[in-house]
Amino acid sequence: MAKKGLPIVISAPSGTGKGTVIPYVMKELENAVFSVSCTTREPRAGETDGKSYYFITRDEFEKKIAAGDMLEYNEYVGNLYGTPRKEVEEKLNSGTDVVFDVDVNGGMNVKSSLPNAVLIMLMPPDAKSLRDRLHSRGTDSEDVINKRLGMSLKEIEFFPRYEYFVVNEDGRAEEAAKKILGIIEAEKRKTVRFPDFIKEFKTYKY
Amino acid sequence: MAKKGLPIVISAPSGTGKGTVIPYVMKELENAVFSVSCTTREPRAGETDGKSYYFITRDEFEKKIAAGDMLEYNEYVGNLYGTPRKEVEEKLNSGTDVVFDVDVNGGMNVKSSLPNAVLIMLMPPDAKSLRDRLHSRGTDSEDVINKRLGMSLKEIEFFPRYEYFVVNEDGRAEEAAKKILGIIEAEKRKTVRFPDFIKEFKTYKY
Repeated sequence: MAKKGLPIVISAPSGTGKGTVIPYVMKELENAVFSVSCTTREPRAGETDGKSYYFITRDEFEKKIAAGDMLEYNEYVGNLYGTPRKEVEEKLNSGTDVVFDVDVNGGMNVKSSLPNAVLIMLMPPDAKSLRDRLHSRGTDSEDVINKRLGMSLKEIEFFPRYEYFVVNEDGRAEEAAKKILGIIEAEKRKTVRFPDFIKEFKTYKY
Repeated sequence: MAKKGLPIVISAPSGTGKGTVIPYVMKELENAVFSVSCTTREPRAGETDGKSYYFITRDEFEKKIAAGDMLEYNEYVGNLYGTPRKEVEEKLNSGTDVVFDVDVNGGMNVKSSLPNAVLIMLMPPDAKSLRDRLHSRGTDSEDVINKRLGMSLKEIEFFPRYEYFVVNEDGRAEEAAKKILGIIEAEKRKTVRFPDFIKEFKTYKY
C-alpha cells in the first residue's frame, strides 16, 4: 500500500501571526496542499473563492453536512466553517500532506476524524506580547481588544491537547515556519508510521 | 524549577554506521554531553579511558551495581556495560542534554530509568545494504558476518519500541545526523514538556 499523506493542523490564538507564518510553511513543504475550508460568511476584501475559502450558502453547507461531505465543521459568530471531506481524503490517500489552518475546535475535530494528524500550536512569546500585538493593529477599540484577548486565552487552554508548540517571536515568522517544518520532518520519522519496515527486513532472502 | 536536559538514546543495528553519525550529532548539538559508559571489557587500540568508556574491573562494576550507582547495565558476550548514574543525573538536572550510544537493551533500560528519554534508531536503508556493509569491512569471515547479521536483525525487532528512526544512506552520515538533530529539536517543542506554559499566561496580570 502506498504511503499516505500526513494531516498537519496549525492553530494559533488570535494575535499570534499565523497568517504570516503559514505561507512560509507552504512554500517550503514538498508534496503538500493547503486545505481550503468552506464558509457561509461573506468574503472580505482580497479574499478569493476557492483559495481563501469556498464561499457557499448556509443551505449548501447544511446539505453537505447531511450528505457526510464535511470532514469537520463548527459554527463561529453565526457562520459555519468546515473542511470538505472528499478533497482532503483524496490528497491524503495519494500520499500528499494536507495542512489545516483551523481554530482549536477545528483542530480537535480534525484529530478525531484523522487520528494520525499532527497538531501544532503557534504561540505568542508571552501574554504581554499578545496584548501588544492586538494593540499594534491600531484598528480595534480597547473593548474589542479585551474580547479578542479573552478569546485567545481560551484557545490557549487547548495547549495540552496539541502535541507541539512553536513560539512566533516578534518579526521572526520565517524562523517559526522553519521550526514547524522541522516538526513535520520529525513526525515522518516516527516508527509507528512505518508498520511494514521490519517486515521488509524479515522477508529479505539472504 | 529550571528546565531539565533531554535524555537522547541513539541505537543502531551492527553495520549501520552509528560510529560515523554520532560524532556529527555531538558536534552540532548545543548544551549536550555524550554519556560515557563503564565496561569490564579490555580497551581496544585507540580507545581512551574516560572518553570511549570507563574501563573498570568486574569487581568495581559489581560494587557500583550494588551501590545503585548504575543507571542501567547489561552483560554482553561475557562483559558488563553500564551507564554511571551520578554523572548523567547531574547533567540532566543542570539542563544539559545527554546522548546515550547504547544497544537496544541499553535503550530499553534507559527508557525505564528516564521515561522522558527520546529513543532514536539509526537504520540501514535495507537488509541487503546491511549485509553489503558487513562484507565491505573485509575483516570478518562469512560465518562471523552471518552471526553479526543475525544479531542486527534481532536488534531491528526492537524497532517498534523506538520512537523515531533515521535511515543512514550510504555515504550520507552527515545527512542522517541532521535528521537526528531535527528530531531532537522537535521533541523539545512537545507541549508535554512545558506543563507551566499555560500557567504563565493565566497568571499574567492585565
